Amino acid sequence: MNFSFKNDYAEGCHPNILKALVQFNFDQQNGYGLDEYSQLAEQIIQEKIKSETSKVHFVAGGTQANLIVISAFLRPHESVVSASTGHIFTNEAGAIEATGHKVHSVEKADGKLNPEDIQSILDGHQNIPHQLKPKLVYISNSTEIGTIYTQQELEDLSKFCKENELYLFMDGARLPQALMAFGNDLNLEEIAKLTDAFYLGGTKNGALLGEAIVINNQSLQPEFGFHIKQKGAMLAKGRLLGIQFLELMRGDLYLQLAAYANAKAMLLKSAFTEIGCEFLTDTFTNQIFPIVSIEQAENLAEHFDFYQWKKLENDKVAIRIITSWATNEEAVEQFATKIRALKS
Amino acid sequence: MNFSFKNDYAEGCHPNILKALVQFNFDQQNGYGLDEYSQLAEQIIQEKIKSETSKVHFVAGGTQANLIVISAFLRPHESVVSASTGHIFTNEAGAIEATGHKVHSVEKADGKLNPEDIQSILDGHQNIPHQLKPKLVYISNSTEIGTIYTQQELEDLSKFCKENELYLFMDGARLPQALMAFGNDLNLEEIAKLTDAFYLGGTKNGALLGEAIVINNQSLQPEFGFHIKQKGAMLAKGRLLGIQFLELMRGDLYLQLAAYANAKAMLLKSAFTEIGCEFLTDTFTNQIFPIVSIEQAENLAEHFDFYQWKKLENDKVAIRIITSWATNEEAVEQFATKIRALKS
Amino acid sequence: MNFSFKNDYAEGCHPNILKALVQFNFDQQNGYGLDEYSQLAEQIIQEKIKSETSKVHFVAGGTQANLIVISAFLRPHESVVSASTGHIFTNEAGAIEATGHKVHSVEKADGKLNPEDIQSILDGHQNIPHQLKPKLVYISNSTEIGTIYTQQELEDLSKFCKENELYLFMDGARLPQALMAFGNDLNLEEIAKLTDAFYLGGTKNGALLGEAIVINNQSLQPEFGFHIKQKGAMLAKGRLLGIQFLELMRGDLYLQLAAYANAKAMLLKSAFTEIGCEFLTDTFTNQIFPIVSIEQAENLAEHFDFYQWKKLENDKVAIRIITSWATNEEAVEQFATKIRALKS
Amino acid sequence: MNFSFKNDYAEGCHPNILKALVQFNFDQQNGYGLDEYSQLAEQIIQEKIKSETSKVHFVAGGTQANLIVISAFLRPHESVVSASTGHIFTNEAGAIEATGHKVHSVEKADGKLNPEDIQSILDGHQNIPHQLKPKLVYISNSTEIGTIYTQQELEDLSKFCKENELYLFMDGARLPQALMAFGNDLNLEEIAKLTDAFYLGGTKNGALLGEAIVINNQSLQPEFGFHIKQKGAMLAKGRLLGIQFLELMRGDLYLQLAAYANAKAMLLKSAFTEIGCEFLTDTFTNQIFPIVSIEQAENLAEHFDFYQWKKLENDKVAIRIITSWATNEEAVEQFATKIRALKS
Repeated sequence: MNFSFKNDYAEGCHPNILKALVQFNFDQQNGYGLDEYSQLAEQIIQEKIKSETSKVHFVAGGTQANLIVISAFLRPHESVVSASTGHIFTNEAGAIEATGHKVHSVEKADGKLNPEDIQSILDGHQNIPHQLKPKLVYISNSTEIGTIYTQQELEDLSKFCKENELYLFMDGARLPQALMAFGNDLNLEEIAKLTDAFYLGGTKNGALLGEAIVINNQSLQPEFGFHIKQKGAMLAKGRLLGIQFLELMRGDLYLQLAAYANAKAMLLKSAFTEIGCEFLTDTFTNQIFPIVSIEQAENLAEHFDFYQWKKLENDKVAIRIITSWATNEEAVEQFATKIRALKS
Repeated sequence: MNFSFKNDYAEGCHPNILKALVQFNFDQQNGYGLDEYSQLAEQIIQEKIKSETSKVHFVAGGTQANLIVISAFLRPHESVVSASTGHIFTNEAGAIEATGHKVHSVEKADGKLNPEDIQSILDGHQNIPHQLKPKLVYISNSTEIGTIYTQQELEDLSKFCKENELYLFMDGARLPQALMAFGNDLNLEEIAKLTDAFYLGGTKNGALLGEAIVINNQSLQPEFGFHIKQKGAMLAKGRLLGIQFLELMRGDLYLQLAAYANAKAMLLKSAFTEIGCEFLTDTFTNQIFPIVSIEQAENLAEHFDFYQWKKLENDKVAIRIITSWATNEEAVEQFATKIRALKS
Repeated sequence: MNFSFKNDYAEGCHPNILKALVQFNFDQQNGYGLDEYSQLAEQIIQEKIKSETSKVHFVAGGTQANLIVISAFLRPHESVVSASTGHIFTNEAGAIEATGHKVHSVEKADGKLNPEDIQSILDGHQNIPHQLKPKLVYISNSTEIGTIYTQQELEDLSKFCKENELYLFMDGARLPQALMAFGNDLNLEEIAKLTDAFYLGGTKNGALLGEAIVINNQSLQPEFGFHIKQKGAMLAKGRLLGIQFLELMRGDLYLQLAAYANAKAMLLKSAFTEIGCEFLTDTFTNQIFPIVSIEQAENLAEHFDFYQWKKLENDKVAIRIITSWATNEEAVEQFATKIRALKS
Repeated sequence: MNFSFKNDYAEGCHPNILKALVQFNFDQQNGYGLDEYSQLAEQIIQEKIKSETSKVHFVAGGTQANLIVISAFLRPHESVVSASTGHIFTNEAGAIEATGHKVHSVEKADGKLNPEDIQSILDGHQNIPHQLKPKLVYISNSTEIGTIYTQQELEDLSKFCKENELYLFMDGARLPQALMAFGNDLNLEEIAKLTDAFYLGGTKNGALLGEAIVINNQSLQPEFGFHIKQKGAMLAKGRLLGIQFLELMRGDLYLQLAAYANAKAMLLKSAFTEIGCEFLTDTFTNQIFPIVSIEQAENLAEHFDFYQWKKLENDKVAIRIITSWATNEEAVEQFATKIRALKS
């Protein structure tokens, strides 16, 4: 079977997590997130983001985090602004609309929103009450296409949102990969200051499952638990989420795993660059989108799995290659060799 | 710390599951339920229920299973009939209503619905289109208060539902405990024949998390995956659910764990019976509801944790004691000794 | 064809309304409730209820008013308490649940809620966040079975709601009939003080259609128009609602029409009383529920239309007779004569 | 006060309707759409569209019609395709999303969808079940910007929808204006054959309120009344809708009113054309979008009311002028004179 670079959730979890699951297996704990591990994991996160007043809730996955946060924060007539590449806009089977809220989209080649984008949506929704009231800005960092926000960009967004009484919510399914990217100047402390809520992705960074929702805006914290329960996301054995985040967040494991994933992607990026490939977007996280000929793509696909992302002109195709904390080093070396061999 | 008899989800999971998680950890698998373990687990379940045309979907928890099944099966004007003790009616934070559907309830001391109960709801909803159209009958087996359905009772319900074009859906969060109860004459094959859908509970029977939704009615099977995704319940690493059900379902582990839990509860039941206690309902599964004096309850609570379930007259209280696959044998012995000591 | 006592919406509207529609037909007006008539009607209502800070919104019907108010006021995890006879609980095809909110019911023979009823629901919802948060109390005045609230009763409810941070909402589809009932001691000014919102029914009191929603709680007023629009209830020609309420509310027409309807019902009530009938509930509004034999019911039904409301023991049946502002005086006389003739 | 060309709902209704309301005012009728007028109006519509198996339902307004039809037809995971100018996409305060369904949009300068547009949405939703299933195509005729569909265009759309198992639904808020437009070759009979459902607009063509939903696809007809009731759209005095459509549909009044509105718009269009104006879109219905200088727009606005629709380059602006069945002939003459005077 070919080694897969199709996604960052093909393997299980970091061995430390399995060890902890075994170690604590027969400890009796309270259910529904009131276990000691979850409470301790919340504390560690509060410390790492330097925000004691932030509240942390653990849920199983990203779509779940998105739909719970958005439906809990908004009144029925309030809507969401997203880039057209936003996960909630394209890949969550209408999860947000199913809770009653529209997602407005702005076409963005780089997957990132800026104040002008949001202003354009606000300008187009002045016919009150016939048009919706945009109220929440949804951004992903790193984005669905591997790009990242700079500190200045996030500050600008945050300032704009505050001035316009909009909530700023960051989808962090691949947040650690953003934080460890070459060129990144953001950190968790700043993100906690600049957003109303965000989440720390676990599923794509070493956990079996789990995202840690962090609510910084205190007016949005009360009664959040009801929404987790109502949407079916409150695990009886919340310990499973608590233990995992405890293992990931203490020490540097969480960021180390992302750094590893990024490094492997960059290694493959170098190989493509060497043979003169261009990229659909220039990324420094664990996703790369090199442009190759269809023939080259087929050649690579003989031994490695990845997605053909976008057909382009002149028999070219952008392929998507994703690495993870678990990507095999030897497989990366072999893939890089194979890539370099495309040239001749 | 006291040993807890408060619920059946205080511990982690059966060690076989942890072993398998470790063993398969670095196998690369497809995401979103298309992994080999999930597919194999579906096959084993199809074989055990002797119904090859049934479809199996794994989700994380019971509330999630309930809300996805019900919202996927019903049109907007269709409603649900439940016993007033039904989990969806009282303990899921309005999860079903949040998907737009009303739950009608019938007061039942034993937690079980019969055709007359449902007929009474149908009779009260004849003023079309001003009243809703009851369309799905929700039952739990074992029920939220530990009772079970007999084969005859389920056959009667099934016949009534078919005659009235109603769907019959069984919440099986504690189904194995029902199947292994003293006096039970139902089996999985019959349940698959008599219901449109049901689920096999994992969370309360040895798994870290997970319920296996089984859809028997073929007209309700198409496009079910959309609903799992839309409600945020499709795990990227579906392998976590697949591996667990694979371990539980092959061989007899699944039923053995439930039999163990039931046996421990019956042992404690005997102790209460010996000292002359009555019970709120007479149960043979892993939940018992002995009636004791408040003083006796406080005495027991010094060393063991459990819930005071219902205040009764004359300073009496019904307490709820739950055992599980992981309940410590020694703790049960000590508890039984303590109970018998109440008499003197 | 028989004269119908089946409901209070069998005829068109009060002739004054038709005159006004003709008179103002070609005046150009702003759409969507911004016409001069609607604005003037709001002012008159504010004056009549002596509450200048209350906001008034006109919608087409009662179910619409109920679903818009409730879904606009509540967050997703908040629920409604209603008597089991409440229109929202039994006769609106799940309109409230379709907006995502559960309606808890309390069985009440007289159709009226008191603080103890609500307390019982609060007591049953202490398992947070597994159970919903009851937040809005829905009452009807007059009720669906013709009874009315006294000032003391409404004060008690209002006080209880404030103490428990619950909203109090009065369905006033038949509010004028309550205000003009024998024994009533409530008035619009008090209702505006004691409720967070209520509505003045038009459809059942002389209008072609229309209910005037009055929001007294200023924190619930902002952005209400969005909800009217979103639920499809904002008429392009809002003038139709404005003109009607202008005609009904200026002078005493609104209350006079209800007084007339009540008087006709009382006249029939007297006839039933004279022949020794009992009543399902003792009412003083435009609905009566006399208990007659099935034979008597069939006898009356030869010449008059009404509903058989509830089958009782001993071949008895409670019938429902409703009068309106338009009920023909002669028909009432004939019906009364027919009733008295039942005796012999 | 200036004469208004801002919309086609500034006045009341055609005098014939008022006459009929007066004439039938005291006839007792069944409520909730079961009155004789509504039933007769349905028959006349069935005859005019030459489709006896079509079902007709009357509701109060266009947003209401759209949200009821779409939510009644679709399952939770199914979505809608609309032009970006579609009323449901931009001007209904999220009414469709509030029922749980996403609306995909395609940018179209002329406001009309074609098979290629829909195919592009289908192509972008192949990642099942992570992406929604587009199931209903929403078109408006005439469109929100005054353009119309030809018979060939509708045939092509209908064929494509059938081949792809999509429902085709036509918003007919301004359908009569389309049918009476210069260049139109469609008729009601063809529309009934080619669509699954459509509606005949009343509000913008002579009625006080009201749209007649026509469901042609028999599989979509059952139990539709529940949805009307649940969404608060079932008028107790359905007679109000029945009487209006009876007056409009018998004889040629309905089409005559639209022809009149169109003629007045074309008269103003000629005036703008004479002075060399261009138009944002070339329309032949009751809406025109001439492009004038800001100075010219301000000049006209001194005596006539209309909307500035879109700011353009070089101090130009597209204005929107709408006429109706009630537009005053003299006002049109004066406006035309004023327009011609702009030139000098």
